[in-house]
Amino acid sequence: MLTVFGDIRSGNCLKVKWLLDRLGHDYRWIETDVMSGATRSTEFLAMNPAGQVPAVVFEDGRTLAQSNAIIGFFGDGTPYVPADPWDRAKMYEWLFWEQYSHEPCIAVARFQRAFLGKAADEIEPRLVERGRAALARMEAALAARDWLVGDGPTLADLALVAYTRVAPEGGFDLGPHPAIRRWITRVEAGFGIG
Amino acid sequence: MLTVFGDIRSGNCLKVKWLLDRLGHDYRWIETDVMSGATRSTEFLAMNPAGQVPAVVFEDGRTLAQSNAIIGFFGDGTPYVPADPWDRAKMYEWLFWEQYSHEPCIAVARFQRAFLGKAADEIEPRLVERGRAALARMEAALAARDWLVGDGPTLADLALVAYTRVAPEGGFDLGPHPAIRRWITRVEAGFGIG
Repeated sequence: MLTVFGDIRSGNCLKVKWLLDRLGHDYRWIETDVMSGATRSTEFLAMNPAGQVPAVVFEDGRTLAQSNAIIGFFGDGTPYVPADPWDRAKMYEWLFWEQYSHEPCIAVARFQRAFLGKAADEIEPRLVERGRAALARMEAALAARDWLVGDGPTLADLALVAYTRVAPEGGFDLGPHPAIRRWITRVEAGFGIG
Repeated sequence: MLTVFGDIRSGNCLKVKWLLDRLGHDYRWIETDVMSGATRSTEFLAMNPAGQVPAVVFEDGRTLAQSNAIIGFFGDGTPYVPADPWDRAKMYEWLFWEQYSHEPCIAVARFQRAFLGKAADEIEPRLVERGRAALARMEAALAARDWLVGDGPTLADLALVAYTRVAPEGGFDLGPHPAIRRWITRVEAGFGIG
């Protein structure tokens, strides 16, 4: 059976859980607490040298890491990965943007506020500024369309919703972003996210 | 004709140039100086709301951004993107790792040293530490194999070589990394990089 190493509070890990659940895959979830150093142990690093969750281990011992690579692997051939090459490229554009320009600000600010207990004024201003810019970009994109790519839910929506829905825990106000708020509801319904 | 907006000093932009050259695509290169604010102009943001290079514009006006999404689009169907789903997933694992754990340390340190003229002791220690960890991970992977994925050059090698070959400009010593040095020569030859 498939084994998933993940921290249930991590949006990156939840992406994998949500997709596997949605697609009906059986798996064993090994809760892996990133704050306790569980991802830096010798055993863990032998499995995933990047020292990060999520990581999935197949029955034959092969390992795959990086949340967006994992959902890409399981999503291929399903409606959540467009068959059209252009739409698929746009989906990957959002996935790379998510890991470069969204997660490192919004997820990191949320981690510092909600998990390390930092106060608002202890968050690096650049993180806040870049996180706000990321949300403004999403708002502009979603004001004009229901889904980030094409006419239905794709992995782009799944990946972006993971930390956008908890952005307020990082101090980001979604009040001024009505298109994002409607889209979150839509994506949660589309993927059966509780 | 295809138009590429890029800064020729940027490894992310060079990935696109190298692949298009290798595959024999015709394109027009619009040199876009990130340091002059060219990527923040109204015209540029209308084309790529993420405000980043590289970005490619097709003859019909469609735009694609994010270096690894662009090379994925043009690489699909060529030998540089494995047809095997597992190898393709591992290739994307490296591509996402590159943008999350390699570029934000090694390219950023290089930018600060070589372009902003900062001294070694002005680079944030965390950047240096994380960059060294990224190189150590690559050295371990490449000690055991010639290419990052499978038996030949893929986009994983192309993407990772872009900033690894100029890592010394960011203060990272490749001396203790013989497997990386041999791999750089191999990848440059494999993709015809001068």
